[in-house]
Amino acid sequence: MTDYHFYEPREGHRLAHDPLNSIVAPRPIGWISTRSSAGILNLAPYSFFNLYNYKPPIIGFCSIGWKDSVDNVEATGEFVWNLVSGTLAEAMNATSATVPAEQDEFALARLTPAASRVVRPPRVAESPVSFECRKSQLLRLTDSQGADTDAWLMLGEVVAIHIRQDLIREGIYDTAAAEPIMRGGGPADYFRLAPDSKFQMYRPK
Amino acid sequence: MTDYHFYEPREGHRLAHDPLNSIVAPRPIGWISTRSSAGILNLAPYSFFNLYNYKPPIIGFCSIGWKDSVDNVEATGEFVWNLVSGTLAEAMNATSATVPAEQDEFALARLTPAASRVVRPPRVAESPVSFECRKSQLLRLTDSQGADTDAWLMLGEVVAIHIRQDLIREGIYDTAAAEPIMRGGGPADYFRLAPDSKFQMYRPK
Repeated sequence: MTDYHFYEPREGHRLAHDPLNSIVAPRPIGWISTRSSAGILNLAPYSFFNLYNYKPPIIGFCSIGWKDSVDNVEATGEFVWNLVSGTLAEAMNATSATVPAEQDEFALARLTPAASRVVRPPRVAESPVSFECRKSQLLRLTDSQGADTDAWLMLGEVVAIHIRQDLIREGIYDTAAAEPIMRGGGPADYFRLAPDSKFQMYRPK
Repeated sequence: MTDYHFYEPREGHRLAHDPLNSIVAPRPIGWISTRSSAGILNLAPYSFFNLYNYKPPIIGFCSIGWKDSVDNVEATGEFVWNLVSGTLAEAMNATSATVPAEQDEFALARLTPAASRVVRPPRVAESPVSFECRKSQLLRLTDSQGADTDAWLMLGEVVAIHIRQDLIREGIYDTAAAEPIMRGGGPADYFRLAPDSKFQMYRPK
């Protein structure tokens, strides 16, 4: 019989590190650009980010705590998601620093804001893919007993998409060619996608 | 100047395949076991799945359409998430078939239901990690104009965790050792995690 470590999170994890974010991993990174009502640019990576729907496309990021990105989207109704490719890893990490709301994080990370076409927050010019989004829903998460947590899920409809041309081959987007980096667990773990790591399985009839 | 392909999703994508799920990729797989009120076991993979909060731990999966998993959680308040390791890829794929609600998908995929400790739906005995969950919230997604979509986000608090002992090394969970498989784009793309694909970056002060 296989031996399992068992615990109930409400009683603590009894391990050297909380394993949660190492287990649900690796994860796509939500690198979110926003613009405050006063026009200050914000750029920050979110570890809990995903696609939610196809038609219309909906993406979302979950913020632990009411951070500047959430505040800006709530005030302006707009945000942009930018793909973090391998060459942008250090710049993305620079934007994870805790800095005052007045600090322009594009400048901090020496990145170029490129004008979006439909929304006001800029995209990261160096990123190979960006999604311009309009807020669709904001949900404050609760626990299973209905008690509020400090996690805020911001969802947005993708209203415009920019894809670097060389990533589209015969009309098909090449995931590995973009060299996305992914978030793992602990304070510092990330993963690259090996070029030969793809395999295919078709859904049974 | 870098050349970008640009489009607005509301006007269609003009590519051979919709690139959305190839771009926000690879993603962790939400392999969800539930039990209907009548006691029928259900097991199905969800492509839009993630961690949302640490304390208490909250995970969620988004269902395009009101599927059996969502119906069962809504009726019973409980579900289990199971990690899909490489050796379980074919079995996971077998559970993605569209079958009548009366079909036990553990039996279909020749998997062993193991009794959970806190909730009634079983975990997949062959899976290296399982999270027992109680429903916390259900959200029907809307677009940015407030119109309902057919996407349903089911969130649950993780109330119990099972981790195969050999994946914990000196108190730390080893993501790559579990050999998780991840979902990519199109109808059939999956990715493996190469053992040497990890790197580390600490958040700047």
